[in-house]
Amino acid sequence: MPVNHNNPLYEELMKDYDNTLDHSGIHGERIARRLFELSQIGFIQVGGVKRPGFSNEEKEAKTLVKKWMADAGLTVSEDGAGNITARLKGKNSGRAIASGSHVDSVPNGGNFDGPLGVLSALEVVESWKETGYIPEKPYEVIIFSDEEGSRFNSGLTGSQAMTGAISEQEMSQLRDYNGETLEQVLAHYGSTLEAFKAAKRNINELELFVEVHIEQGKKLEKANQSVGIVTGIAGPAWLEVEFIGEAGHAGNTPMIGRKDSLVAAAEFLQSIPEFPKGISDTAVATVGKLDVFPNGANVIPEKVRMLVDIRDIKEEPRDRLIDQLVEQAEKIAAKHDIPSNIKLNTRIKPVPIAEDLQKRLAASLEKFGITPTYIPSGAGHDAMNLGRFIPVAMLFVKSKDGISHNPKEWSSLNDCVTGIHVLKDFIEDAMEK
Amino acid sequence: MPVNHNNPLYEELMKDYDNTLDHSGIHGERIARRLFELSQIGFIQVGGVKRPGFSNEEKEAKTLVKKWMADAGLTVSEDGAGNITARLKGKNSGRAIASGSHVDSVPNGGNFDGPLGVLSALEVVESWKETGYIPEKPYEVIIFSDEEGSRFNSGLTGSQAMTGAISEQEMSQLRDYNGETLEQVLAHYGSTLEAFKAAKRNINELELFVEVHIEQGKKLEKANQSVGIVTGIAGPAWLEVEFIGEAGHAGNTPMIGRKDSLVAAAEFLQSIPEFPKGISDTAVATVGKLDVFPNGANVIPEKVRMLVDIRDIKEEPRDRLIDQLVEQAEKIAAKHDIPSNIKLNTRIKPVPIAEDLQKRLAASLEKFGITPTYIPSGAGHDAMNLGRFIPVAMLFVKSKDGISHNPKEWSSLNDCVTGIHVLKDFIEDAMEK
Repeated sequence: MPVNHNNPLYEELMKDYDNTLDHSGIHGERIARRLFELSQIGFIQVGGVKRPGFSNEEKEAKTLVKKWMADAGLTVSEDGAGNITARLKGKNSGRAIASGSHVDSVPNGGNFDGPLGVLSALEVVESWKETGYIPEKPYEVIIFSDEEGSRFNSGLTGSQAMTGAISEQEMSQLRDYNGETLEQVLAHYGSTLEAFKAAKRNINELELFVEVHIEQGKKLEKANQSVGIVTGIAGPAWLEVEFIGEAGHAGNTPMIGRKDSLVAAAEFLQSIPEFPKGISDTAVATVGKLDVFPNGANVIPEKVRMLVDIRDIKEEPRDRLIDQLVEQAEKIAAKHDIPSNIKLNTRIKPVPIAEDLQKRLAASLEKFGITPTYIPSGAGHDAMNLGRFIPVAMLFVKSKDGISHNPKEWSSLNDCVTGIHVLKDFIEDAMEK
Repeated sequence: MPVNHNNPLYEELMKDYDNTLDHSGIHGERIARRLFELSQIGFIQVGGVKRPGFSNEEKEAKTLVKKWMADAGLTVSEDGAGNITARLKGKNSGRAIASGSHVDSVPNGGNFDGPLGVLSALEVVESWKETGYIPEKPYEVIIFSDEEGSRFNSGLTGSQAMTGAISEQEMSQLRDYNGETLEQVLAHYGSTLEAFKAAKRNINELELFVEVHIEQGKKLEKANQSVGIVTGIAGPAWLEVEFIGEAGHAGNTPMIGRKDSLVAAAEFLQSIPEFPKGISDTAVATVGKLDVFPNGANVIPEKVRMLVDIRDIKEEPRDRLIDQLVEQAEKIAAKHDIPSNIKLNTRIKPVPIAEDLQKRLAASLEKFGITPTYIPSGAGHDAMNLGRFIPVAMLFVKSKDGISHNPKEWSSLNDCVTGIHVLKDFIEDAMEK
């Protein structure tokens, strides 16, 4: 693909770039150029891409990065789930240090969520090529498939496959936005269900995984720091709550004696924000999806169904919050004398980051004059799946206005490159341990 | 159409019919047979029909009733809005007494809502044929088009056209469930926009309109009476209320500082039922339709839009209720520090029934041993549109369990026929005045 450097993304990244950040083999211009080249795949508008997992666009993005990986001297392989692993030999064999992220996007996504983590991991290798550094241990750059979940309305598919975290039953239930099964989607992609299952690797071949990602929040902006330390990845739990009332004509049913499911649901909705506040500073509970049935202007709602998204970075308080909200929903249904249906649809174990690793990240940050900011990750990441089996660490790079999953998603090149310096230092330190 | 009397509707109507109700020229079997024949047009299941306004099914139902009208000696005409008027000469010319209803249905409607009113008006003529009664004044049986509103998401189209209550602007904005304009729908039906406009008649040719309709509520069932007196028809007002918050990632946005539009909306929703209770016994306010945007499980709702359906049978208290709910929505938006958009989409003037007419209906009821039950109509009816120009009266026939707009809709043949006797007595009384 011919590169047009006269494009808004590249120019915007470069225009206030501080060239003194170009040292130790790390080059901001290469990051800007590569972010731009990826932005052209699945391009929908300046700043915006659409690269669903297992799409031609995701595949094309992987093909481009694989070429850069090979050019950097890495040995590239792909598993049956579409995960790309690019390996550099170390002075010693044994367990590897790994870093990476994903190149798929939400339907109207930005240019940083995913690609920055992949390019950061690769830039560390590029820097070593220039400086002649040879790591003690093997090093892997990984691209995980279908992280965002826009394909199957779930997500983290590649890292689930790699860690064996997806059961055959879950595989059989997946349906994509076209109604296709996982097997059909894999067939279009050029793989099979058998190969997908075989993507499960011995994850203990890895000693440590570290992921660079944009923050998708505003804490670093408020702290005026380029890079921060993730304290844990909040596993979401999705509680489906239904209130079942009695339909009736809005005009002909007196107020007295109504069983209006929406009025009951409203009492529950209004009370939700008080509960996480009583649990911890990091706990959150949100109803983002709510549907009213039959949803007719002149019909008293017979049923309201909602999903309560409940998160915390530690499992015990998160589960305590689930219990409290179940109890609250039941209490309100009883008060309104109507039935409720409550079930836990999704329950992902949070992954706290080891304190030892947070300290080592802090040491690397301080070498670059950055005051550590500690941030819980409310969103899930591939590191979460790996974190169930091996030590993981995460670095967040400052996001403008906290916006992500949107063409307005933005991180300055200075902040991105600073993050790569921190990553490199942290990895080189881990190579010596 | 060959009539199969071995069908559940006909048999169910006839099985506990009290034959002593067959007198003065009124015959329950004819009503059962005709209700059954109409139920076969747009038949979807036992008890259930789909006859949208201006559909082939509504047209076929009208064609069948027109044949019965002609057979009964009436002069049948149809206007450009599809309204059928069947006229019987009186001993004197001058202003007519009219009765009727509609034969269209909601998408999954029952067999009584509409047809009972048309067949009742026609049965009065049938009885006169048998008894040799010749009315003093002209008498009209009317079928109004598209009463239910399933075609254009509005309703009362035929009676609006006949009374000239629909403006050219409103006509131009109508879109049906296929996205077609009124003009396109009329073309399929066999009419034109010009003919539709010309359907406006001099409504003062009518002295009085009286409509028999199923109650669609439970008051007559509770009072254990076959027939009741409508005190007024509550004009609905539809208040569109939007709360505008700020979207954000449900995991990455701390609870503190959120602007969650659904939490604000919930506070409003929960407070609504208290307001009508403070207004009158007949006031009601309901949110049946509510939509959350973007309605994603892990996205804090940016916007909630709802329609508040507000009704009372008198205009002043109804409008006071609107004002109170507008004030409440604004107060809650301000408390949550978010904007709101509030507008009144629909504002139909309620039509109280004159006390004099209620007294005359009561006198007719008492002749048949029925204790008058006085019922406000929360639902709109064609009588409402006529009631803006001429005196109108309405009789409700007992509904089983208050269910309507549903295949379970049911009124016993005994109650239906009792209603027709009351209607006949009331009309004959009006003929003498």
